[in-house]
Amino acid sequence: MHDNLIVIDGLQYSNWNRAIFEQLKSGGVTMVHVTIVYHEQIRETLLRIGQWNRLFELHHDLIMPVKSTADIYLAKKLGKVGIMFGAQNCSAIEDDIAMIEIMRELNLMIMQLTYNNQSLLACGCYEAVDSGVTRFGRQVIKEMNRVGMIVDMSHSGERSTLDAIEISQRPIVISHANPSSFHAAKRNKSDEVLKALGESGGLLGFSLYPFHLKNGPDCTLDEFCDMVANTADLMGIDHIGIGTDLCQEQPISILQWMRNGRWSKEMDYGEGSKSDADWPKPLSWFKDSRDFPNITQGLQARGFHDEEVAKIMGLNWLNFLDQGLQAQKV
Amino acid sequence: MHDNLIVIDGLQYSNWNRAIFEQLKSGGVTMVHVTIVYHEQIRETLLRIGQWNRLFELHHDLIMPVKSTADIYLAKKLGKVGIMFGAQNCSAIEDDIAMIEIMRELNLMIMQLTYNNQSLLACGCYEAVDSGVTRFGRQVIKEMNRVGMIVDMSHSGERSTLDAIEISQRPIVISHANPSSFHAAKRNKSDEVLKALGESGGLLGFSLYPFHLKNGPDCTLDEFCDMVANTADLMGIDHIGIGTDLCQEQPISILQWMRNGRWSKEMDYGEGSKSDADWPKPLSWFKDSRDFPNITQGLQARGFHDEEVAKIMGLNWLNFLDQGLQAQKV
Repeated sequence: MHDNLIVIDGLQYSNWNRAIFEQLKSGGVTMVHVTIVYHEQIRETLLRIGQWNRLFELHHDLIMPVKSTADIYLAKKLGKVGIMFGAQNCSAIEDDIAMIEIMRELNLMIMQLTYNNQSLLACGCYEAVDSGVTRFGRQVIKEMNRVGMIVDMSHSGERSTLDAIEISQRPIVISHANPSSFHAAKRNKSDEVLKALGESGGLLGFSLYPFHLKNGPDCTLDEFCDMVANTADLMGIDHIGIGTDLCQEQPISILQWMRNGRWSKEMDYGEGSKSDADWPKPLSWFKDSRDFPNITQGLQARGFHDEEVAKIMGLNWLNFLDQGLQAQKV
Repeated sequence: MHDNLIVIDGLQYSNWNRAIFEQLKSGGVTMVHVTIVYHEQIRETLLRIGQWNRLFELHHDLIMPVKSTADIYLAKKLGKVGIMFGAQNCSAIEDDIAMIEIMRELNLMIMQLTYNNQSLLACGCYEAVDSGVTRFGRQVIKEMNRVGMIVDMSHSGERSTLDAIEISQRPIVISHANPSSFHAAKRNKSDEVLKALGESGGLLGFSLYPFHLKNGPDCTLDEFCDMVANTADLMGIDHIGIGTDLCQEQPISILQWMRNGRWSKEMDYGEGSKSDADWPKPLSWFKDSRDFPNITQGLQARGFHDEEVAKIMGLNWLNFLDQGLQAQKV
């Protein structure tokens, strides 16, 4: 079954090279939402886009840029891996609302309002207090709605996420996180958030990053699929997908950049700790993108029907993007 | 008496030219803390410093840069007006803690953690909810303490201001605001904040911007001096000074920049309103810097002793800066 599916991974941030692209193809991935920036600002974001353009040029036989949902179908037809750009923080627009349309024109399709810390737009999940979406944040959500850039609250705090769901006139996404009820972690989401997300037409991408899973790297495929089933009951089968958060071949310096940016002189260990500062050990059943068929099989074994599996593995993401990426009608 | 005083104005943001510098000299001003940036980022801040360097070169007979408190005494001795740089927002360090030391080396002596809106460091006084100083904000205050850059909370919210007073190991300033008890305005400060500020060794600069005064442009000198007397009772005579917030010869486009930055597509009127969008009419007794002697006389008439007047007009600022600008002992 897996080969016929449209498979969409709702988040990866790997140290991209030809071998990793080949793994994506071999795992039957139609499209992957790639993080191009964390703390990078405008100029640095252009640098990252430039680096991606070079990758598209060098590996055009394997990958292609996704500039609309039509390109996802095209990637499937051509047997290439579609690459969709996203940002895990709002530093890519700095302090300028005009940058939203400009970044969208450069195919930045998804943007998180925060990455763990307070941003100019909203509060991250690592701050002590979350005061919700800010004055600038309200303007930004409106503008993202207008141009068809998707709001992602994966790394945001509870109140900010509920605010964003309410303020946004279009459904939002939590591209890579799991329910707190499955595993309590600052990055995972409460049932209240997930319910509001589902009811508003939004989407949750299940994370396979061990810090977001019960028993970490020892989480079993069965436990993962149980979580999927419980969340389907909570949110509805149309509002869930995959967002692996796979970070392949990244050195520890990248993890430190993600966690510390330029904001801290002291080492912040994020989801880790001083004695556990490195990348987590991968799951035995999901070591890299070649293991996507394991998820499909796990979901089938858990009792999901074929059409349900197809939705979770990619169709829900496809439908969500198809709506979310269109410019708002005026 | 006025001519013998060291007179320090704790904030001005004028459209600087020779005539304005002459007014400062004629009003007996020894030093003025000038805002060099509102929403400007690093590159733009360097542009502003470059513009100031050109002004120092062109008008060296009238003005001089203040790079330490010794330069304030030197300005007094030479009969020049000392110019001290400050920022009304933290955009001048963008997202980078390393920029604090660099900006301090460029003589940026005072920095507000916020300007009305939520910043990466703390919450502004115009947000609906104030969640206090952020994770990045705590690191920044520590670093500002280390290098001797003064924390200014003039445009911050209540909770963030109380947080900053508590977190900072060195006294902070509210360079230009008035007590809310005198005139209720988002920009003015509660007695709780002012008391905590005074007790921690901090300083309040009284604003002469009509939006911060009872009866606006019709506020009388007597009413102003009453406010000073009441605040002296609350905070102590050593913790008050002047911070006029004088914005001379600025076009409305600058007011719009201050209020809207790059964050809003809709017009935000700040302290004004749609029907009152322009700069306020000036006070009759403080039209520009030539009127500083009026304040001295007003304070004398209100019953302040000469040494108290001297403190309010400049010595308190001088003592505060003398402590605050030194790098922290290690």
